[in-house]
Amino acid sequence: MRTIYSEQHRLRDARTELYGGELVQPFEKPSRAETVLRVVRESGLGEISPPEAFSLEPVLAVHDADYIAFLETAWQEWQDAGYAGEVIASVWPARRMQSRVPRFIDGKVGYYAMAAETSISEGTWAAALASKDVALTGAKALLDGERGVFSLCRPPGHHAALDMYGGYCFLNNAAIAAQYLRDHGAERVAILDIDFHHGNGTQDIFYARDDVLFCSLHGDPEDAFPHFLGYADETGSGLGTGYNRNYPMPPGTPFAQWREALADALARVGEFSPQYLVVSLGVDAFENDPISFFKLTSPDFLTTGQMIGALDIPTLFVMEGGYDVDEVGVNVVNVLKGFDA
Amino acid sequence: MRTIYSEQHRLRDARTELYGGELVQPFEKPSRAETVLRVVRESGLGEISPPEAFSLEPVLAVHDADYIAFLETAWQEWQDAGYAGEVIASVWPARRMQSRVPRFIDGKVGYYAMAAETSISEGTWAAALASKDVALTGAKALLDGERGVFSLCRPPGHHAALDMYGGYCFLNNAAIAAQYLRDHGAERVAILDIDFHHGNGTQDIFYARDDVLFCSLHGDPEDAFPHFLGYADETGSGLGTGYNRNYPMPPGTPFAQWREALADALARVGEFSPQYLVVSLGVDAFENDPISFFKLTSPDFLTTGQMIGALDIPTLFVMEGGYDVDEVGVNVVNVLKGFDA
Repeated sequence: MRTIYSEQHRLRDARTELYGGELVQPFEKPSRAETVLRVVRESGLGEISPPEAFSLEPVLAVHDADYIAFLETAWQEWQDAGYAGEVIASVWPARRMQSRVPRFIDGKVGYYAMAAETSISEGTWAAALASKDVALTGAKALLDGERGVFSLCRPPGHHAALDMYGGYCFLNNAAIAAQYLRDHGAERVAILDIDFHHGNGTQDIFYARDDVLFCSLHGDPEDAFPHFLGYADETGSGLGTGYNRNYPMPPGTPFAQWREALADALARVGEFSPQYLVVSLGVDAFENDPISFFKLTSPDFLTTGQMIGALDIPTLFVMEGGYDVDEVGVNVVNVLKGFDA
Repeated sequence: MRTIYSEQHRLRDARTELYGGELVQPFEKPSRAETVLRVVRESGLGEISPPEAFSLEPVLAVHDADYIAFLETAWQEWQDAGYAGEVIASVWPARRMQSRVPRFIDGKVGYYAMAAETSISEGTWAAALASKDVALTGAKALLDGERGVFSLCRPPGHHAALDMYGGYCFLNNAAIAAQYLRDHGAERVAILDIDFHHGNGTQDIFYARDDVLFCSLHGDPEDAFPHFLGYADETGSGLGTGYNRNYPMPPGTPFAQWREALADALARVGEFSPQYLVVSLGVDAFENDPISFFKLTSPDFLTTGQMIGALDIPTLFVMEGGYDVDEVGVNVVNVLKGFDA
């Protein structure tokens, strides 16, 4: 399997993450992608290619144009305001408040954020642009006939909604790739999100549509980030009713239980008979992940890849989360090797 | 004029405020109240009395019971989760997300917060309880026939909504006092909010009611916290239509302009002919305030008090914001002396 990778991800290197009431070094950091790349290389998984450059057109096919304009200038506007830290939201349109975009950057940040743990740092926008190129290059490879491709995206994307960032995500790489496949001939695309956290952004983008099936396995939002989306009763709206499927699971969930949810999700994907499958590949379901609570082991990720591969659908793996830096490479490559087996 | 004061405010002494992407020492700190108390004493304004203790009943008359239960236990739940910092919201029910209260404290905090700059610290709840006693003791003094009373509340209250904290506020002291006056015989109560920031919480609590008039002079939410409420076109809903009046003003607003807005607001209060007036007394419209952008001078606050006093309505002054600690006492006492003149 080919891996698409860009060194531009290093431009996303925030100093701060708001965690437990403190500003800590971000869990989502450059060494994650570098560890994955190293294990991809050592394991002989396949060729490693740089991405092609894509315009903003496929981004604007799933994101709000004003949101994208905000991301482009947020860092500079924050600097112009004289703030000393990175860009962090501190007030937002809460219940019964106005959903208007204020003029001042502090208000704009709150409008476009869904979480305050994610700092926008210098270079974030450039890295996010490169990350979507990595995803789109993978999607294009599927269109060209490759059976499986790994887009080693960083920053990740699945929490980024139509017009909101958060959860370390700015552009929704998986959604951008899925829409690109739709716009280049595929009638139906499925997205399977196995990251520990609910893919709220992806759900948001496709919630009212029947041409993109979204299935997500994740920590119950009662207990886990992003807390306000990912419940089992969110099944889609309008035309999209029945095309959104959430599998929230409680703290301590072992592979036996997780695997049942995966099997159910894969059965739904199979019934949908998509031309392509996009997998939001987070490996934070791993037992030692520092900010998650499932109990998957490294061999379980191999099984996971085998189960996905058994569907026999051309598949794009898009890197999402996974924060045990020592094991993130092994776990990712296990999924990919399982798929190829 | 009598001042009601409790030393319990010192229990609210947070270490952190999220400001400009950094955790800084909070602008809202114990020395604010101590400076005001000192100038009250030195100026010979009048007697300084401790508050009586009130039950939660008048609090629950304006706040959601689940919100109050959350405030009571938030600090302990945060400690139990093992977090090292103070309680700060990091994810919230953003656009198109669920408005459900999650089980885990990190999610609950986001549900009940409207801003992340305000840390809940140890002792915050005890201080907030004492602060509402200070406000209620002042309200009771009005019922007993005093013409003007100063409730030196800390923490402040006007950003606290039905079920949300933020902007350094937890319990809405002014709203609690106004409702107490209503519940003890007053048919109509007016609230005039001259704090630099919009009193979003007070507006929220009384927005659909015609028995409590709310008028607020403040920095335009396009440019100023809380950014998502305080626009001029928010005039009330249902029965309350016409009983909410906002005067948003731009950066650099001088007293001449601010005074016109005040005169208009006071005219509306006069037309409403309330039995009592509650003034949310912030003095951050002061020219040197570190986080605000109006240009009032210390003598302007004397004029402000005179204009309010000319209405000749029994008035409760409830302390809100004002962050230039050197001048906060002088500016507050100027308003009170102007009223008494």
